[in-house]
Formats: sequence, C-alpha cells, structure tokens
Amino acid sequence: MADSSAAEQDGDNVIRIMVATDNHLGYGEKDAVRGEDSFTAFEEILELAVAEDVDMILLGGDLFHDAVPSQNAMHKCIELLRRYTFGDKLVSLEIVSDQAQCFYNAVNQSVNYEDPNLNIAIPVFSIHGNHDDPSGFGRLSSLDLLSTSGLINYFGRWTDLTKLEISPILIRKGESQLALYGLSHIHDGRLARLFKDFKVTFERAGPGGSDASTADAAEDDWFHLMVVHQNRADRGPKNYLPEELLPDFLHLVVWGHEHDCRIEPESNAKKGFYVSQPGSSVPTSLSEGEAKKKHVGLLEIYKTKFKLKELPLQSVRPFVYDSIVLPDKAEELGLNEGDASTKVYKFARERVESMIEKAKAQLTGHPKQPELPLIRLRLLYTDESCMFNTIRFSQMFSTRVANAQDVVQFSKLVKRTKGENVQLDKEAMRRALEAENATRVEELVDRYFEEAKTKKPLKLLHSKALAEMTYRLVERRDANAAENIVKFYREKAVEHLMESMPNEESIDDELQNFRERYKHEDLLRMLDARGVKTKNESSVFASKDDANGSTAAAAGRGTRGTRGRGAARGRAAATRAKPQLDASVNNSRSSGRQQTLASSVRGAKNVPPYVISDDSD
Amino acid sequence: MADSSAAEQDGDNVIRIMVATDNHLGYGEKDAVRGEDSFTAFEEILELAVAEDVDMILLGGDLFHDAVPSQNAMHKCIELLRRYTFGDKLVSLEIVSDQAQCFYNAVNQSVNYEDPNLNIAIPVFSIHGNHDDPSGFGRLSSLDLLSTSGLINYFGRWTDLTKLEISPILIRKGESQLALYGLSHIHDGRLARLFKDFKVTFERAGPGGSDASTADAAEDDWFHLMVVHQNRADRGPKNYLPEELLPDFLHLVVWGHEHDCRIEPESNAKKGFYVSQPGSSVPTSLSEGEAKKKHVGLLEIYKTKFKLKELPLQSVRPFVYDSIVLPDKAEELGLNEGDASTKVYKFARERVESMIEKAKAQLTGHPKQPELPLIRLRLLYTDESCMFNTIRFSQMFSTRVANAQDVVQFSKLVKRTKGENVQLDKEAMRRALEAENATRVEELVDRYFEEAKTKKPLKLLHSKALAEMTYRLVERRDANAAENIVKFYREKAVEHLMESMPNEESIDDELQNFRERYKHEDLLRMLDARGVKTKNESSVFASKDDANGSTAAAAGRGTRGTRGRGAARGRAAATRAKPQLDASVNNSRSSGRQQTLASSVRGAKNVPPYVISDDSD
Repeated sequence: MADSSAAEQDGDNVIRIMVATDNHLGYGEKDAVRGEDSFTAFEEILELAVAEDVDMILLGGDLFHDAVPSQNAMHKCIELLRRYTFGDKLVSLEIVSDQAQCFYNAVNQSVNYEDPNLNIAIPVFSIHGNHDDPSGFGRLSSLDLLSTSGLINYFGRWTDLTKLEISPILIRKGESQLALYGLSHIHDGRLARLFKDFKVTFERAGPGGSDASTADAAEDDWFHLMVVHQNRADRGPKNYLPEELLPDFLHLVVWGHEHDCRIEPESNAKKGFYVSQPGSSVPTSLSEGEAKKKHVGLLEIYKTKFKLKELPLQSVRPFVYDSIVLPDKAEELGLNEGDASTKVYKFARERVESMIEKAKAQLTGHPKQPELPLIRLRLLYTDESCMFNTIRFSQMFSTRVANAQDVVQFSKLVKRTKGENVQLDKEAMRRALEAENATRVEELVDRYFEEAKTKKPLKLLHSKALAEMTYRLVERRDANAAENIVKFYREKAVEHLMESMPNEESIDDELQNFRERYKHEDLLRMLDARGVKTKNESSVFASKDDANGSTAAAAGRGTRGTRGRGAARGRAAATRAKPQLDASVNNSRSSGRQQTLASSVRGAKNVPPYVISDDSD
Repeated sequence: MADSSAAEQDGDNVIRIMVATDNHLGYGEKDAVRGEDSFTAFEEILELAVAEDVDMILLGGDLFHDAVPSQNAMHKCIELLRRYTFGDKLVSLEIVSDQAQCFYNAVNQSVNYEDPNLNIAIPVFSIHGNHDDPSGFGRLSSLDLLSTSGLINYFGRWTDLTKLEISPILIRKGESQLALYGLSHIHDGRLARLFKDFKVTFERAGPGGSDASTADAAEDDWFHLMVVHQNRADRGPKNYLPEELLPDFLHLVVWGHEHDCRIEPESNAKKGFYVSQPGSSVPTSLSEGEAKKKHVGLLEIYKTKFKLKELPLQSVRPFVYDSIVLPDKAEELGLNEGDASTKVYKFARERVESMIEKAKAQLTGHPKQPELPLIRLRLLYTDESCMFNTIRFSQMFSTRVANAQDVVQFSKLVKRTKGENVQLDKEAMRRALEAENATRVEELVDRYFEEAKTKKPLKLLHSKALAEMTYRLVERRDANAAENIVKFYREKAVEHLMESMPNEESIDDELQNFRERYKHEDLLRMLDARGVKTKNESSVFASKDDANGSTAAAAGRGTRGTRGRGAARGRAAATRAKPQLDASVNNSRSSGRQQTLASSVRGAKNVPPYVISDDSD
C-alpha cells in the first residue's frame, strides 16, 4: 500500500532491536593478555545499542561464561549495564501481555523499565544459556541476580520439565506488534524427548489461538520472534534442535549457543521462517568457526516484515585460524626424505609468520581493540616423525601472539587404504557413540568416583591428582582448582573412551586402562599448558551441550564434522536468503545487501543437514 | 537553651539512623531447619527501618557470612533491599563532603539516593567485615556488587595498607551535622602495627583540622560517629582494637564484629566517647554470647547529642544456653558412686527439657519467628566416666530443637592441686600462644601443604581425606566440601597445637604427631556431626579474627575468658551509662531508660579490660 512505505520510515512504528548472544563474560578473565576481551566486546555492543538508539537489546544466552560468575565478572557486567542501559530516554515499547506471568521472578513482577524506582533507557531481554543456566543451591541463574537487581529482563525460563508451554511476551510500538518467544537452554536430549512426546506447546499470539498444532497461519498483525539456545549443528540424534520442530507461524528465530557468526538470516523454506545465528562476541575456543568475523545485528520490525542489519564488532581481538593436511604437503616439503620434523617446523614457522601478518588486516582502529592476535595453526599428520614440541615452538611468538601456549596444534589423521582421511567417518562414529552412550558414559565415569567412595580403590584419579587438588585449594584458596582437575580427569577419561571406541562390555576395562595410559605428570602438564583456560574448561560433556567446543576435540568436530556437507547448502542458503531481503523495510541499502549476501555464503559453510535420523529414539 | 528542646523535637533537625550489624546473610542457608534464619532477621530489620521512618540504615559489616555469597544469599539480599529501601520517600540527608572520594567505587561516584536513575527511600551505608571483605580475583567485596548495583553505599574502605587515612562522610540535616567515619575490617595485628607506627590518621570534620593527634576537642557542631569491625574483647596483644586508640573527638562508636548484643552505649571515661555494640542478628555459634537477646538500635542525633533506642528483634529463633561444671554437682548427683554416665545423662535430659520449656518464653508471636529453639548445654567435666554419646543423646530431641546434632557438648576441665579449675589460665596461655605464634602457626600449617606439594609426603592430611574431598566434589559438585575439609583439618591441627602447648622447637614434631593422634574416620565423624555448620565453619584462625567464635574453642573462650573480670566492670558501665542518658534528646521515655540500664548490667558482663599490655609490641 502507498502509505505503508511512509509508515515504515516512521520510527514510531518500527521496533528496533539490538541482537547479540554468547558474550561469555568472564571467559579467561584471569589471563593477563586476554582477560578483558569478553568485557570489551560486550561494552562495544552496549555502545552500539546506545548509538543506534534501539528500543531494546535481545540476548540469546550465555551472557556469562561460568554458571557462578566470579565477583569480578558479575561486578563488571553490572557496571556496564548500569552505565549504558540506565537513563532518561523514554522506552516506547508497551508490554500488552500479563507481566506477572512473563516476569514472575522479578521483584515487582514487571518489565524493568516499568519499575517506578528504576530509570531504564534501553531494556535488556535475555534467556539463559547452558553456561548461565540455573544451578547450585537455590537453582538460581546468574540472570536471576541481574533480573532482581532490575538490570535485565530474564524470560523464556521453564520451570516444569515434564512439559514446556512457551507463551510470548507481547510488545507493541505504534503499528507494529511483536510476540517474543523465548526458550532458555534445556538439555538437547531432554528437549528432543519432550518434542517427541508432544509435550512442547506454543501459545500463539493473535487469532491463531493457543494450540500451535492446529494454529492456522492466517494473516495477523503479530511478528513472531523466537530466541533459542540449543545445538543447531547436527551433533547426533537427540543432540541438537532441528529447525523443523519449531512452529511455522514464526517469522524469525534468533539462534544462540552456536559460536560461529551466521547472522545473515537463512530461510527455512519448509517452515517459512528465517534463522539468524549471531554467534559469540568472544572466541572461547581456537576453532575455525570462532575465527569468523564477529557481528551483532540491528533488527528492525515493521508489522510482519523485518530487516536485519549486520554490525561488525570492531573491538574483537584479531584471530587467524589455518589448518594444513601435512600428507598433502609431503612432496612440496619433501617430508619423505630427511628430517621431516625440522622441515615441518620450518614450514609452520613461516606459516605462522604469515598468519600474524594476515591478522593485521583485522585491526579496525577501535580504541579498545587489543592488537596481539590469536593464532592457531592446526597440523593434521599421519606420520609422527613430522611432529615437534609445540609448546617450545609457540614460545617463539610469546611477545607477538595472545595465545603463546598453543599456537600450533597437531591432530592425527587416520590413513585409509584409499589414502583419503577418515576424519569425517571417525567423527560420525564418535557422534553416534556420544549420542547413544554419552549419558551412560557420564554416569559410568561418575560411578567410578562414587564407588571409590564406598568401597573400591580409586580407579580414575591418581592419588597425586587428589594431592595436587588440595595444594591448589590451600595454596590459592581457589576451590575451582580442585573442581577443574576433577573435570579435566573426567574429560580425559571420556576422550579416552571415545578414541578407543570400546564396545559396551569393555568400557569398564577401558576406564581401568585409563590410569595406566596417562601418567599424572603428563595430565598435569596438559592441564597447565591450558593456562587460564583450565578455569573455564568445561567437562567434555560440554562438547555435546556446548557448541563453543571448549575442548580441542569438540572444536575440531565443530568444523570438520560439517564442512563437506556445508558447501552445497551454503549456496542454497544464499539464494534462499533473497526473499527475506525483498521483505526488508528499506531497499535502498543495497550495499548492505551485497555484503550480507556475500557473508551468507561464507556463513553457510557450516550448515548441517536438518533431519532427524530414524534412530533418534 | 530554651528553644533547643523545641528544635530537638523537630524531626527536620534530628538525624534518625537504624543501626545493625553482623547479619551474616546465608549462614546455614542449606540447613533445612535454620536455613532462612539469617534472612528473616535481616528482613525484620528492614521492616523496622521502614516502620520507624529512619533517614538511613547503618551496618557494621558481615552483611554476608561468606566472602563469596551463594547466588541464593546474594539474590535474597538484593530482593530484600529492593523491596524495603527503594521508593518515593524523599531522603532528607544532604552529603556535604566530596562524594567522588567517599564513593569512588560507585558507578556514578555518588551516594545511591542521588543517582538520578534510582529511586531510593532509605539509603543503606555499610563497611565490610571480615566475612565480606574483598577477596578472590579482582579483590572485590560482595558489597562492591551491591554498591555498583546501587543497592547500598559501601564506605570506610581502605586501599593502602601502609597507612590509613580515615576521612568522614559529612551529612547534614537541618541543624544537625553528622561526620560518619568508617573503618572496614582490617586484620587486628596489622591494625595494631599501623597504630603503633602512627600510620593511622583521622581527618576530623569541623574546626578540629585534619590531624587527630593535635586536634583540640574544641566545641564544634559536628557529631562524630565511627563504625568499626574489629575484635573488641581482649584476645591477646595485637589481637583486638583497644578503644583507647580511637580519637577522643568521637561521640559514639558503633562496634561490629562482636556477636553478643551490648547495644546499650557504654561510656569510655578516658576517651569521653560511647561505644555501642549491637551484636549479630543471627547466632553463628552456640555460645553464651549469642544466646543473649538480639537487638538493633534506633539512633537519634541532634547536633552533638544522641539517643539510642534499643529495638528487640522479634523474629529471631529462641536460643537457650547453659553451662554446668559437673564436679560442682558431684554430690547432688552422686557421681562418685555408681554409674556416673547414666546419672549425668539423666541430669542432662531433665536440664535440656527445662531449657526447651524456658525457650518458649522467647516466643514473641512474630509471624515469621521460627519456633523450634536452639538448645546448647555445655557440660564441663574432669572425669570421663561422666560422659555419654552426645549425638545419640541429641537425637532424643530431634523433633523439638533446631540443632538436633549438638544439643549437649562436653568440655574437659583441668583439675589443679588447688582444686579450682584452670580454664581461665589455660585460656590466658592459649591466647598468649595465639597472639605470639598464631601467624607463625598459620604459616607453619600452610607450609605443610606447601612442602608436601613440592617434595615431602603429606604430613597433615590423610589421603582418605583427600579422597573424601573428591567424592564430595564430584558427588555434590560442591567445591565448598573440599575447602571445608581442608579448613577443618587445619583447624584441628592448630587446636592440637594449642592443647599440647609445644615450645617453638617442638611444634614441627607436634604437627607430625597430629596425624597419628586423629584417625581420619574420627575427624570425619566430628566434621559430619557439625552438619551444615561445616559449610560455614571458618578455620580456627577465625577465632582470632572472628568474634563469633565459630569454633567451640573460640566460643568457650569468648565467654569463659572474660566472665571473671567482667562482673565488676559491668556495674561500672551501668553507672557510667547514666550521663549518656541525660544527654539523650527525649527524657520522657524513662521506661526505655530503665530497660537499657538493666540490660547494660547484663550486657557489661563480658566487658574486657581495655589496656594495651606492655608486650603489645
């Protein structure tokens, strides 16, 4: 209609939302070099929100890296939120749904900007992720503290795990009406069961009525926006949330948890909605996905149309990732004659040098951007004669990179007769084993601690580890030290299982072999080589629940596992992305479109096939 | 002057302050029975502040029990502060000193009620105590979080430990001017050294000028109020803060840290100021001092006069404490013939029954007051044949008391030839040893963990303890469990030293004997007998730094150690208390006066002699 375009231009009718996720505040906070990175990026996001004069900020979970953030992380977060989101600016969003229900956990049962005692300029809405989900005594999330302090609006929180009833927060601004659905992180396996048992219902806004299954997609004025924090990449049956399970009346899904930036909305043709994956604002692992340019999004909604403008983050530390299959370089480097190790060492040194050069291109001139780059060169090898001491190697660059302890990483390729590597298949097996046995394996490993408690001698933990634990406890008064060592051992134990791929019966023996295989000293060295990451390391089970792949294995998987399939779909996604662009409010910004088209091709490389495999139950 | 009394009646000229301290939020929060006690009492205090329509609330430290409060404790505290201290009421206190200096750690460098984005009705001012002092990474206090959230005004924070410059917050209301001095907790030994080296200076408000030592006490209009959180009872040289060290221009000192309620101001004739010790609002140990009736104070200030009205807390759990010297009962109970154990058991049972009856008198009818009482009967014995299994004994009362695990406690009396018990002298020795060696002992014990780390085998901790630690860690994901076991061991080790009173040379051997003496199983039983208190147990060093005497030894010391000397001074204090009453604004409330006089006699029982012993350096 003629006047529509006019109305679309009218700020009073357009809801403007700053979209970001996985800020992981506190990640590596004790690292002398990288300690501030998570806070710097979050501050830039808040600055952008102020500069863009948005109506609200929408976060997709994992605001904090630790379930119980350090007082330092909590303090810095509170300080930033108060500095940037408080003020006299009038909030023009009207909440028309029952606030007591949406914000039952807020002190005065209302959105924070309607609290007469607080002066909020930019309300922040957030679900929780797997890193800041309710935990510990009282089952509170760190977001509860922020919510009770009036600093954020914590929503999408489930309380009943036998069934999920997802009802939206209804927001009105002029002619536009937003139905905001949130699903805070829930274990993927459990969520899959709930869907399978039809225990997930969406209370649809507008004429559609409350029953999603029978809801007709009849035109109504509501824009249906959903925020989730689940695995999106296929990490095995029951181990991710297939988009197909989300209702087709949605217009847009903001997907948290996955750390690689795929913020350009990708259309799900089957369901008729778009998915935008902003990605993390700080890399929590040195994986390929995390090396992508980080963005947040400026989402503009007019009635049922939306436009998402990508805003590149300028204060993020440069990060260059590269992965080399050494066998492919055998001839070029002459690895088959002479001292292969030295040749690879020389090759790696030159490669890292060029990566450091390359990193300079990522300097934006942002006053707070740290200049020391993150550099990760992964060397896939078959012949151990290629290897060298990576720790000593990395020391070469100690003054020129931010991750001086792990610039180079070797990973073994398993040769097939056909000569082509089997990473993918091994991944598939690994994923399968994980999906089927993970819970059981977890119970199993725990049982070893359990039983040791009652009768058995310790199977898994070296007494030395127990000692080490105590010294760190007493020495540093750091209770984390202990917990981390235990986690680390559990992690290694399960990695051991994954590698040895035992059949069900022999798993017990394998766990017993674990101790003989690893000397405590080696484990400690591995642990300490991680430096600060120890503090933040999550157990290997995180590599299922946690897309940031905080273990090397998981990081590898995140990228390797899907590359093959991804490329084709990437092109598809790019073309499918067009209609969304036509739907955009303001067609004049064609440059923006080109950029997003391009990025969507890059972004789409990791798109996994969205199907539920038959063995999912 | 004639009009003065009129002005005194005028609310616009009287500064009204709710005074409380040592709320220990989160103490025993995991205890199914007592878990809410600390929060209930704190809420009553806030309710009283609202009901009394005070201008501000002043807290003396230890708002939280743990340096890093659980998210549950922090959440509840935030919720209470927002509910009771936020609102439209106009705050009539004008800050006339440089706020950027007083509140440098606040986001906008001002008192919270002048923050344009917050609507504060009753500002809370607090120093930190030894329980919520800055700690961990970032050296932040939990009060920093509350301060940055705008919930409290955290002051009296020192940053330079080489010298203390204490400058007041200057507050004006009508004709009254308040100079509020705060000294957040600092290790007593360190504070003693700073005083000894003349490194502590008070910037005096008004004409007095900034140099306390030469400050003439010339009349000025300022009321000088100081808040401290240090040992007040003499726990050995360098191990408490003698009142004499505080400047004589002060009018009133609010003393935190000591848990027994001595809120009735006691005059220090030598210095010419009064001291009020509100005491804790929740008992954190079952000692005599904690059994006293808990109060908070309504402090009214007009120019340089003040009046403190005692407000009894109605929601505090009933607590009856009794201590029996069994030898004194030997005849009455016929302990010298027949089965002494059974007779004492019978006696104890009857006594506890009557104590439970007595506890009913403490029921106030407050809707939130828990009815199950705390009961502690201490039996001082010389002959072990009197003893019985206290845990089984306590089970008798499991449904009728709140501390079913430790109703009765046996403590050994050492007989002298002169027949009179030597508790006091032993206490003196113990205190002396502590004062002289405590730091060294602490270092020593730590060194055992230290050295074990590098070369030595474990001296102090049983490997079983290390195991136990891990199981609890893994089983409960409760890092505290581990830390507590370590603390408990260190505590026992030092108690062992204290009892055996070795000379300097033999301390090392004694520590080595420690392991043989205690079987791990016994230690664990002791540990578990404490039930929830484990979580909150502080190391024995807390019995120096921590007046709540959270260890049995310390609790005993807190009371026994001073009773003898106390009585005489009690009467003195009572009489000296009169002039203060005459100075009170409103003489009409004579009933209140009687009550406070009486209570001051009780309250004074624990007054220690305020002298610096010559060997203090």
